[in-house]
Amino acid sequence: MSPADIERQESWLSQEDLATVRGRMPILYVEAVPVRVAADGSVTAVGLLLRASDKGRIQRELVSGRVLFHERIRDALLRHIEKDLGAVALPQIPPIPVPFTVAEYFPTPGVTAFHDSRQHAVALAFIVPVAGDCAPQQDALDLAWLTPQQAADPAIIADMDGGHGVLLRHALAHLGHTI
Amino acid sequence: MSPADIERQESWLSQEDLATVRGRMPILYVEAVPVRVAADGSVTAVGLLLRASDKGRIQRELVSGRVLFHERIRDALLRHIEKDLGAVALPQIPPIPVPFTVAEYFPTPGVTAFHDSRQHAVALAFIVPVAGDCAPQQDALDLAWLTPQQAADPAIIADMDGGHGVLLRHALAHLGHTI
Amino acid sequence: MSPADIERQESWLSQEDLATVRGRMPILYVEAVPVRVAADGSVTAVGLLLRASDKGRIQRELVSGRVLFHERIRDALLRHIEKDLGAVALPQIPPIPVPFTVAEYFPTPGVTAFHDSRQHAVALAFIVPVAGDCAPQQDALDLAWLTPQQAADPAIIADMDGGHGVLLRHALAHLGHTI
Amino acid sequence: MSPADIERQESWLSQEDLATVRGRMPILYVEAVPVRVAADGSVTAVGLLLRASDKGRIQRELVSGRVLFHERIRDALLRHIEKDLGAVALPQIPPIPVPFTVAEYFPTPGVTAFHDSRQHAVALAFIVPVAGDCAPQQDALDLAWLTPQQAADPAIIADMDGGHGVLLRHALAHLGHTI
Repeated sequence: MSPADIERQESWLSQEDLATVRGRMPILYVEAVPVRVAADGSVTAVGLLLRASDKGRIQRELVSGRVLFHERIRDALLRHIEKDLGAVALPQIPPIPVPFTVAEYFPTPGVTAFHDSRQHAVALAFIVPVAGDCAPQQDALDLAWLTPQQAADPAIIADMDGGHGVLLRHALAHLGHTI
Repeated sequence: MSPADIERQESWLSQEDLATVRGRMPILYVEAVPVRVAADGSVTAVGLLLRASDKGRIQRELVSGRVLFHERIRDALLRHIEKDLGAVALPQIPPIPVPFTVAEYFPTPGVTAFHDSRQHAVALAFIVPVAGDCAPQQDALDLAWLTPQQAADPAIIADMDGGHGVLLRHALAHLGHTI
Repeated sequence: MSPADIERQESWLSQEDLATVRGRMPILYVEAVPVRVAADGSVTAVGLLLRASDKGRIQRELVSGRVLFHERIRDALLRHIEKDLGAVALPQIPPIPVPFTVAEYFPTPGVTAFHDSRQHAVALAFIVPVAGDCAPQQDALDLAWLTPQQAADPAIIADMDGGHGVLLRHALAHLGHTI
Repeated sequence: MSPADIERQESWLSQEDLATVRGRMPILYVEAVPVRVAADGSVTAVGLLLRASDKGRIQRELVSGRVLFHERIRDALLRHIEKDLGAVALPQIPPIPVPFTVAEYFPTPGVTAFHDSRQHAVALAFIVPVAGDCAPQQDALDLAWLTPQQAADPAIIADMDGGHGVLLRHALAHLGHTI
């Protein structure tokens, strides 16, 4: 199935249908923490997208998006990274497609550390080194690269909604950084 | 949300609606490889369900089922294990809810090692020790406990459809067994 | 090789020899974060040992110890948990013997988040549910059970030396808790 | 500590001392399965070294070597890959330094699937994509690139001693391939 086919397939699911499904089933997502790495694989910088939220507030976000019908996890990951960081980001999709964590976003706050008022989303989260040029795409205002120490700053976390801050800290913990 | 609420919620998704969604979105599943373990955590036996397939053939299966709206992964895992192995199976749900592998079942054979003609299902797979009494439930004919060596037998794998045999071998590999 | 044999073997390595080796090779350790879990596998409490440090200060510690010659990781894990928490702690050693993190303790501070002035130790760290009665053994003054929220308190971390606090936070992150 | 310093440090451990230690302590190793990957991260080829064994037999091997005193896991991994595949192999060392499996080599056959008559070695095993030019170094006769399907062939496994064949199959299982 070519990407064009997938888009077509996807279009069969109207916004109305998607709204209906969202209230009835968990929706599968992938999320990526884009990182710059040194030759020894250690992380030198973490990439965060800046977006204007619905409420006009500036927010930091990770790469995130739905897995489509008939799309593999690794293809969804590649597609969303290129959609958010550009076509020449050169992401190094992990050969083992097992997430470092599974973030369960519930419409009800407090069930887990993650919250999404629109839906019950289950996100497979990956740390993805990017070797190429990255540029914010679409509605993103900027892409900021922070050192792991800067990214661990509670002030950064406070700028991230719905649990993205928690996910970022979990990623830093998996990478072995002090948090 | 109580289990009863979840069932009610779920009932809002009619068989017809589910059929429609199945052709348009990946459906989230959990799968469990039930195991008996020694005091040192090493696996002494792997549990396989025997079911009569639609075509009247006897098949071996792992524990498998959908994640419902507003249900956590760990609750879905517990529910499906109790549904298939009984209420006193005493499963030890892993404290870290990260699957050992993610099995991507495609309606088209050959995209991955996993195939499901009904749908695109993404299954988070876990190895789950069970400490209590297990008895086959519902439509299962029997529950067989095999040693890891027996479970690695290609003849066993041949009795498992849609990639469950591959998943079982992957589980044995993760457990450190020769396959 | 029986446990008695291992002890004998180990005794061939005198304190003097161990001191010599410690300056020349990385020493393999296992570390365990003992936890109490609910039926759904979620962690309700984390166990921390209280010990008097060499400097007379009270410190919180995780279960930790060397892997001996001809001893499997899972046997070392079981041995050290029983040594620290007692013979009836009933630990559930994970069936997959892959650590959630590898803590690299260097004699030089700052190389990693972990530090051990005596040696270069590489510790395979596991989260281990314990189902039985636990009692502090040997030189431990007490065993305290904290909720994950309490364990995430920076004041707790400050009571832990050499990076055990960082390891505890990493464990909480892997478990999906807000840190 | 510079690489030169590490080598010097290492030289403090004479062959005689190493032989003594080998009979008394587990020795820490890293092992790497070198792979070529596509843009989506899927593995297209697995690299195996060909070496003449002590008994004059040609053997296939993975990248393998000791972790030195005061050397991080990721530095040991990088060093051994460059030693075996050359200085321009451009390995992508995983940002999360957690092995996909831990292979425990015992001097006594049968304790685990892994055996090393010289010592008790505990190897942290990683799957490492290499993007550059690879050439067999030192005593390796050749470096062969096999497709995952070819690598899963039992005949290949039979050419690998001490459990490297088992480790290769475990790697293929983690990568999601049929084995």
